[in-house]
Amino acid sequence: MTVNPVDLIRRKRDGEALAPAEIAGFVRGYTDGAIPDYQAAALLMAIYFRGLDGAELAALTDAMLHSGDVVDLSTLPGSKVDKHSTGGVGDKISLHLAPAVAACGVNVPMISGRGLGHTGGTLDKLEAIPGFRVDLDVDRFRAVLGDCGMALIGQTARLAPADKKLYALRDVTGTVESIPLIAASIMSKKLAEGIDGLVLDVKVGAGAFMKTPERARQLAETLVGIGRRAGKRASALITNMDQPLGRWVGNAVEVQESIAVLENRGEPDLVELTLALGAEMLLLGGAARAVEEGREKIARSLADGSALARFRRCVELQGGALPETTRGWFAEDTVRVGAPATASATSYVQSIDAEAIGLAAISLGAGRVRKEDDIDHGTWIWVKKKVGERVERGDDLAWFSSPRRVGRDTSREAIAAEVQRAIQKAYVLGPEPPAPRPLILEVIR
Amino acid sequence: MTVNPVDLIRRKRDGEALAPAEIAGFVRGYTDGAIPDYQAAALLMAIYFRGLDGAELAALTDAMLHSGDVVDLSTLPGSKVDKHSTGGVGDKISLHLAPAVAACGVNVPMISGRGLGHTGGTLDKLEAIPGFRVDLDVDRFRAVLGDCGMALIGQTARLAPADKKLYALRDVTGTVESIPLIAASIMSKKLAEGIDGLVLDVKVGAGAFMKTPERARQLAETLVGIGRRAGKRASALITNMDQPLGRWVGNAVEVQESIAVLENRGEPDLVELTLALGAEMLLLGGAARAVEEGREKIARSLADGSALARFRRCVELQGGALPETTRGWFAEDTVRVGAPATASATSYVQSIDAEAIGLAAISLGAGRVRKEDDIDHGTWIWVKKKVGERVERGDDLAWFSSPRRVGRDTSREAIAAEVQRAIQKAYVLGPEPPAPRPLILEVIR
Repeated sequence: MTVNPVDLIRRKRDGEALAPAEIAGFVRGYTDGAIPDYQAAALLMAIYFRGLDGAELAALTDAMLHSGDVVDLSTLPGSKVDKHSTGGVGDKISLHLAPAVAACGVNVPMISGRGLGHTGGTLDKLEAIPGFRVDLDVDRFRAVLGDCGMALIGQTARLAPADKKLYALRDVTGTVESIPLIAASIMSKKLAEGIDGLVLDVKVGAGAFMKTPERARQLAETLVGIGRRAGKRASALITNMDQPLGRWVGNAVEVQESIAVLENRGEPDLVELTLALGAEMLLLGGAARAVEEGREKIARSLADGSALARFRRCVELQGGALPETTRGWFAEDTVRVGAPATASATSYVQSIDAEAIGLAAISLGAGRVRKEDDIDHGTWIWVKKKVGERVERGDDLAWFSSPRRVGRDTSREAIAAEVQRAIQKAYVLGPEPPAPRPLILEVIR
Repeated sequence: MTVNPVDLIRRKRDGEALAPAEIAGFVRGYTDGAIPDYQAAALLMAIYFRGLDGAELAALTDAMLHSGDVVDLSTLPGSKVDKHSTGGVGDKISLHLAPAVAACGVNVPMISGRGLGHTGGTLDKLEAIPGFRVDLDVDRFRAVLGDCGMALIGQTARLAPADKKLYALRDVTGTVESIPLIAASIMSKKLAEGIDGLVLDVKVGAGAFMKTPERARQLAETLVGIGRRAGKRASALITNMDQPLGRWVGNAVEVQESIAVLENRGEPDLVELTLALGAEMLLLGGAARAVEEGREKIARSLADGSALARFRRCVELQGGALPETTRGWFAEDTVRVGAPATASATSYVQSIDAEAIGLAAISLGAGRVRKEDDIDHGTWIWVKKKVGERVERGDDLAWFSSPRRVGRDTSREAIAAEVQRAIQKAYVLGPEPPAPRPLILEVIR
């Protein structure tokens, strides 16, 4: 269908619902260059204000999904379930969740992204493993998946190219923060993976893109709705991001902390989220009939080494090299700097602004400021004190690696001082321990 | 000031007011090409939804105004007052209003536009006069104005180029119908004329861009507000567009009908609007102390031939040639077609959809469908029956000139039949005469 872009923009602007064929025509026209950036920008902003209804969302997602290749995994036996997180700080869950779920008999064909804004990216973390390749083609992806029940790769250029083009435009036109656009973007890529089911981890809080429970719930319901309309099983967990996940923020250190979960000695919050997300994936994949059964199976895969074995096999198949024992792996070859508490008396951590911690890690080189920046995989922040923990006068709240990269106008010391201040500012301290807060706030099925 | 376009777009999107320097920086960046179309399109759409406050509007208008030349008329003695209409059908008022006001001692430096959408343009009408030049440079404009107290020209490329670029973008991004953007666009061009005062004729009704009195009042108040903030005298008339103005729609025929007003034999609605707008201009220009005095002076200029003499002189100075007597000028060398009433009994005209009449005239060649189209200055529609008039079975509602241009797939007869139907559809007939409606609905000073 050839569409009149101005007519579409005006009708959406005035609150009208567009026909599926019109949305498909727009996406096609934009992707092939017939519709210019400025008309797409105007439509995106109109959508920002007016939203999209279920049928429009389904059409937009479908059009972006079919703008490129769709992976066909139908010849692969067993169910295929993926997990997607809306992005957090210290979120290395995918790395150990995928092998745990695979070890329980559900395939995990996972296509991940890079760091975005203040959040880390699974691909960047994986690339801290020497030799690990995230750029497999579809045949190799299928082969790895067939062998070990999981594969961890990056979005190829041929997967949802319309989403890529639209996302780049949203980024420079102030139209990123739109729930329907976020949802369609996520789902177009996930539905292109050839999955049967998808579990969504929608983060909420200061460290998440969704700052309020209302926005998070709206996004979660929108995502699940798109999945269902596309004929997939889908559910969402809304999870707290009022502090970084685990204790390590960086790339190599996060792989290390993830492997610790696979070695059954993980941080409690990481383990809890792994059990919850894993159980949900087993439910969708038909490998568990109830949440409790799913949690037990996942826990067993961590305890008996089967999850770790899957991970090792996957790393090997994707060209990476892990040492025989991973204890003490990734030696801290960097100089340690502390960020001491500034409170004058004993206090308790109330919350930690994870966005500020994420940005501090980026300024140390753990992420990109500009798209073309290189990442320093070895840099790190260690969250010494987490929410609820007691802090004495002079205690370090966190440690971080001494900056290795310095700018033309910035010294090592200046960057370190800035990171120190940022960490101190990120911590909210109070005289009493805070009331315990659940990590998993809501499940939307 | 160098601005961060994404930051500006996001803040406007979120309802924040932008600083004047930020708006100026955006307009400058867009005009010189540093800011791309897609970012301007997103900002325009955000402004469509969020509006602009008084300070933002003043800054936007000022930035567009100073993006090009500003005419300096300070050396010219006497006050300079212009009129601007938001665009109507059959609106040939400028042609005789300017000389009438000039004859009363107030200079009228008028920079007009071309037809837009369904409305006619003063420049297109003037060019129906053989030899008439609308493309004078500023020096010649000043000289004509100094000689006869009026000049009628088109917007030069050097006048408010930012507005030109932004208007072209709005046209293709569904952001035309925004009151602050409309107002800033109008005022940036008018304030570049070097005027002391401005009277605005804001049309309302089916034939106007503003369809409701509320929107018209909002636009009128916005326009007057911008004028005041820029230190100019300004007032606005809200006038009815529930039928075409006068009886003729076209180009040459509208010049002819305008000259009839100057010969003191004008159509009542044209004369009434001329007296009202002219009185307002004399008030702003200091040539009348009260509306009644202003109306009398304008009426006298029409009765004593002084307005006609000014018009003749202006046409001559701008290279045009009018015959000695204008009675019967522009002979109807076209074949006449009628559009008969379809009602089965005696009825009265309740209203005439002026937009439909305007579009019918364009399809006859009186205006442009595409920017590059030529205009047929000789084509016309004659509104035989106006609102309140009695229609017998079979009476013609209007006459129009037989189509002279035919398309590749359209015959003369097909176009004529379509225009006939459009005219019949534009007329709303009823069994009783409608209650009289005032032409001038409101004055905003």
